[in-house]
Order: sequence, then structure tokens, then C-alpha cells
Amino acid sequence: MLLYIYIMAITAEAMSGALAAGRRNMDLFGVAFIAFLTALGGGTVRDIILGNYPISWTQHPPYIYLTISAGLFTMLIARFMQRLNRMFLILDAMGLIAFTIIGCNVALRLEAEYQYSTVVVIMAGMITGIFGGILRDVMCNRTPQVLRHELYASVSLLVALLYLGLKYMGLDENINMLISFIVGLAIRLAAIHWNLSLPVFSYSPGKWK
Amino acid sequence: MLLYIYIMAITAEAMSGALAAGRRNMDLFGVAFIAFLTALGGGTVRDIILGNYPISWTQHPPYIYLTISAGLFTMLIARFMQRLNRMFLILDAMGLIAFTIIGCNVALRLEAEYQYSTVVVIMAGMITGIFGGILRDVMCNRTPQVLRHELYASVSLLVALLYLGLKYMGLDENINMLISFIVGLAIRLAAIHWNLSLPVFSYSPGKWK
Amino acid sequence: MLLYIYIMAITAEAMSGALAAGRRNMDLFGVAFIAFLTALGGGTVRDIILGNYPISWTQHPPYIYLTISAGLFTMLIARFMQRLNRMFLILDAMGLIAFTIIGCNVALRLEAEYQYSTVVVIMAGMITGIFGGILRDVMCNRTPQVLRHELYASVSLLVALLYLGLKYMGLDENINMLISFIVGLAIRLAAIHWNLSLPVFSYSPGKWK
Repeated sequence: MLLYIYIMAITAEAMSGALAAGRRNMDLFGVAFIAFLTALGGGTVRDIILGNYPISWTQHPPYIYLTISAGLFTMLIARFMQRLNRMFLILDAMGLIAFTIIGCNVALRLEAEYQYSTVVVIMAGMITGIFGGILRDVMCNRTPQVLRHELYASVSLLVALLYLGLKYMGLDENINMLISFIVGLAIRLAAIHWNLSLPVFSYSPGKWK
Repeated sequence: MLLYIYIMAITAEAMSGALAAGRRNMDLFGVAFIAFLTALGGGTVRDIILGNYPISWTQHPPYIYLTISAGLFTMLIARFMQRLNRMFLILDAMGLIAFTIIGCNVALRLEAEYQYSTVVVIMAGMITGIFGGILRDVMCNRTPQVLRHELYASVSLLVALLYLGLKYMGLDENINMLISFIVGLAIRLAAIHWNLSLPVFSYSPGKWK
Repeated sequence: MLLYIYIMAITAEAMSGALAAGRRNMDLFGVAFIAFLTALGGGTVRDIILGNYPISWTQHPPYIYLTISAGLFTMLIARFMQRLNRMFLILDAMGLIAFTIIGCNVALRLEAEYQYSTVVVIMAGMITGIFGGILRDVMCNRTPQVLRHELYASVSLLVALLYLGLKYMGLDENINMLISFIVGLAIRLAAIHWNLSLPVFSYSPGKWK
């Protein structure tokens, strides 16, 4: 189940990357690169930080082909993306949750080798969830959107807390995932619907340190 | 002693990151993320480049909490930061020196495994000292300030050279650190006071390669 | 032979990095840093992604000195660079090809440890070839040029495919490299001469995801 959602998620992320590349007038290669980076960059950063070698996608070539193809395919259907916006946001939200849960589990699996504490496990989930989008924005020369508005990273944090909490309470894995998905999706969609966001910190006087 | 200075240093760096995030109107999460990245990003890049796994902060959760808290706390006291500017610069300078010395020692400690030569040890110190600020600026969509002006990276280089030179001469570790701190701090504060800086290279004609 | 071309290549890349730093009015340290990053950053990213520790340049200090010196030297001769443009483009093209071949071989050498599939080997070659320029542009706060125009990454891809194809067919290594160089150089120079490029994807409506 998580695998299917993961595949949908990297496809959706790759498409979001391709659109961002299109806004910077990138060429075919740029689109493929940003699509790949958006979809698999979060997991790559997580693996590098946790020392989880070999890095996941290097052992699963189909993910490489899938994300690049999804990116290139997006060029053809970009004109319809506006209309698909709602579906896209739902896929993206499901991806965020799937990435978070997978990231937590990767950190937990390394316990024997490195003994990561719970806060690091949560961060591994969040890095998997949001870092692809951060890398996409850095490569497209923008301040990362995930740091600026909407409940996005916060949803990842809440899902990680909920999932790990239920796991430590010994809940059945499948039921745990189901609950985490429903709650996470509900919060994310509510955030989109009511435009919920965290307080913003604006600072302007003086010169840069 | 170095530990206390290190803790002060990551706090100061986290605060500088939070202010940078505030200039980009980031939300609570963005502020916490940039604070963390500014404070612990330099050490993270050093550990990744040296292959020093597990990465330091993953084994010290208190540093994670401290930097995030310091970042969020900065939002509350931002209005007073102007007045605290002088103290802030001193803390930041002490942090630069502490980071540099710690970075050199991490590379030296890996000698058994990888045999890093002196120039790599020096670079490890400098990466620890300056890369947090570079990552902060990249994430905030600015050309890294440390590459543009003031004697900042140069102070890190001088401290690394001095510290390692005295170490190879067999000087007592504590005396060595004391000297490195005094000399490094003096140069850094002199650079700030007299606006010392390295020559700048300006190149404009033709098109980008 | 490949070693000589590699040394020429990192020198040319360091010079290209120094010019980019000059366009951002960086100081001596910034120039040295960007020169180093442009020349050796691609190999660094490749090593980190493949888990190839210790990272190559940490074991070859002369490369560190060479790239930093080349960067600083460029400041002196920048005024003549326009006139050297043609030679520069040829060196850069040879560097791209050398980097690609070396990157593929690094991935192949890790076979015993991690068993990377062919697509990952190709990507290792491309990362080595183009990531230095990407890091240079990110640090200089620009959208990476390699993602935007010209057949550059594509040349790297074609060279990797050709080189690995001939290798798997059992062709003698030296003849293989010679063919890969001639074909790669021909395509790259043709691309520059006739301004060949990949189709560009432009997307503008709606708001950013």
C-alpha cells in the first residue's frame, strides 16, 4: 500500500518540479533534472545525513526512469495542469505523508548501526517530506516556499509525531498508517481550504549580519 | 571550555539565521529551519565531506533543541537586536574561532581511518566555521556574504594555521586554544573596527560561460 | 593521458568559476572558494552520492592547490579572457568529457561494494561533468545555466552512453577513450558553432505550487 502511494507521490513531485523548471524556461534536460531532484532529492538528503548507503534510488532504477518520464510528460500536459490543480494538491499531500512515514522508518531501520534518537527520526521523516521541494526552489533561484507559508512542513511534523506515537504504543502498522494518512490529509486539506498558516516573522531594520 | 564556547556559538549562529529568515518573511518553521541550518550546517557539511558518520548533531539532540529554541526566541527579541549588535558580533567571532578549532580536531581524529593531510584538516576547520552562513544565504536566495567582504573566512584560515602550527610544535592544548582565541578574536574585531577586507575581484564584460 | 586532460580540465573549470565570482564582486577568498567548488564540486557530489569515501580531492592535495591557484591567477589575466574565449571553450569541452568518463569509472569501481546499475553509472558520469557548474551558479545566485541552454549536459550523456557501450563491447580502453573524446568534442563544438540546443519548456500561468 505505502509503495503504491510512494510511486504516486514521486510522480506528483516530479510533475511539480517540471512545472517549476518550466517557469525558469529550462530545456528538456533541465526539466528532467529538476523533476528527478524534486521527487528523489528529499530521500537523497535524508540518506546522506543518516549515512544510509547505498542511497535508495541508486538501487531502484525504475524510480529514476519514472520521475524523469513524469517530468518530461508534464511538458505535454502542462496546459491542462491548472484544471487538475485540485487532484494535484491531493496527490502532493498524500506524497508528503508517505515520504514522512518512509523517512521515519529508514531512520528506525538504522538503529543497530547508529542509534538515532526520536528527534532525529522525526527530522529524517521531515527531510524526506520537504527537502525535495527545497532543492527544487534553490535550483530555480527562489526562496524555498515551504519555509514561507502554508501548513506544509508542519503537517509533516504532525504526521511524524502521530505515526511514531502510535508505533511506540504498539498499534498495528497498517492501522497506524491508515490513521496517520487520514489525519495528515485532513489537516493538509483544511490548511489549503482555509488558508491556514503559521505566524510569519518579518525583520527588516539594519544591515545584514 | 571549548564546549561552553561552542554552545554560545551555535546559539549566536542560530540567532543570526533567524534574523536572515525574518528578512525573507519566513514562517515559524522557516525560522526554526534556517536557525538550525546556520548553526549546525557547517558541521554537517564537514562531516559529510570527511565521511564522519554518524553526523555530530544526530548524536546530540540537545543541540537541535537549543538551536531551534534560540531561533524562535529571536523572533521575540528581534526589536532589541540592533542594540545588542556589538555583543552579537563578539559572540559570532568567538563562534567562528571555536567552530574552526573543532573542525580541525574532527579531521585529525579521523586520521586512523582516512589519513587527511594538513590542507584538508585546515579546510575542515574552515568549512565548519563558514558553511553554516553560506547555507543560510543560499536558502535565503542571496549571494553568500562570507564570499564577498570582510575578513571572516580569512580569520578562520589564520586561526586554523595558528592552532595547527602550535599543536605540531607540541604546545599544551589549553594554552594553544587560549592563544588561538586571543589572536583570532583580535584580528576579527580589528577587521570589523577598521573595516578591513580582502581585495575584491570585479569582472563584467562578455557573456557568461 | 586522461590524467593530463583531467588536470587541464579542473584548471579550466576553476578559471570559469573565478570569472563567475568576479561577476558577483567577490573577494579573494570568494574567488578561491568558487574556483575550487566549480572544479572539484562535481566529483565531490558524485562521491557523496555513491558513498565513495574518502572523497577524491581529500587524498590529492595538489588538486586543491592547483584549482585555488588557477582561480586567483585568473584575476590577473581576466582582461585577456575574452580573447582566449575560443581556447577556453575547447578546454571546457574536453573537461566535460574527461569528467564524464572519470565519473563513470568511479561508479564502476564501486561495483564490488554497491553494485550500481548502468543508469546510475551514467548518472555518476554526468554528475561529475556538470555539477561543478551547477554549484557555481547556485552560489552565485543564478539559475544554473546548464539546465537552461546549449547541448552541454546532453553531450555528457552521449559520451557516457558511447563510452560504456564501447566498453561493454570489449573495445580497448585507450581506443575507446579516443573515440569518446573525438565524438564528444565534435558534438560539443558543433553545438557551440551552430547554437544547437534542446527544446525549452516555458510555463507561466497560475501560481507556484
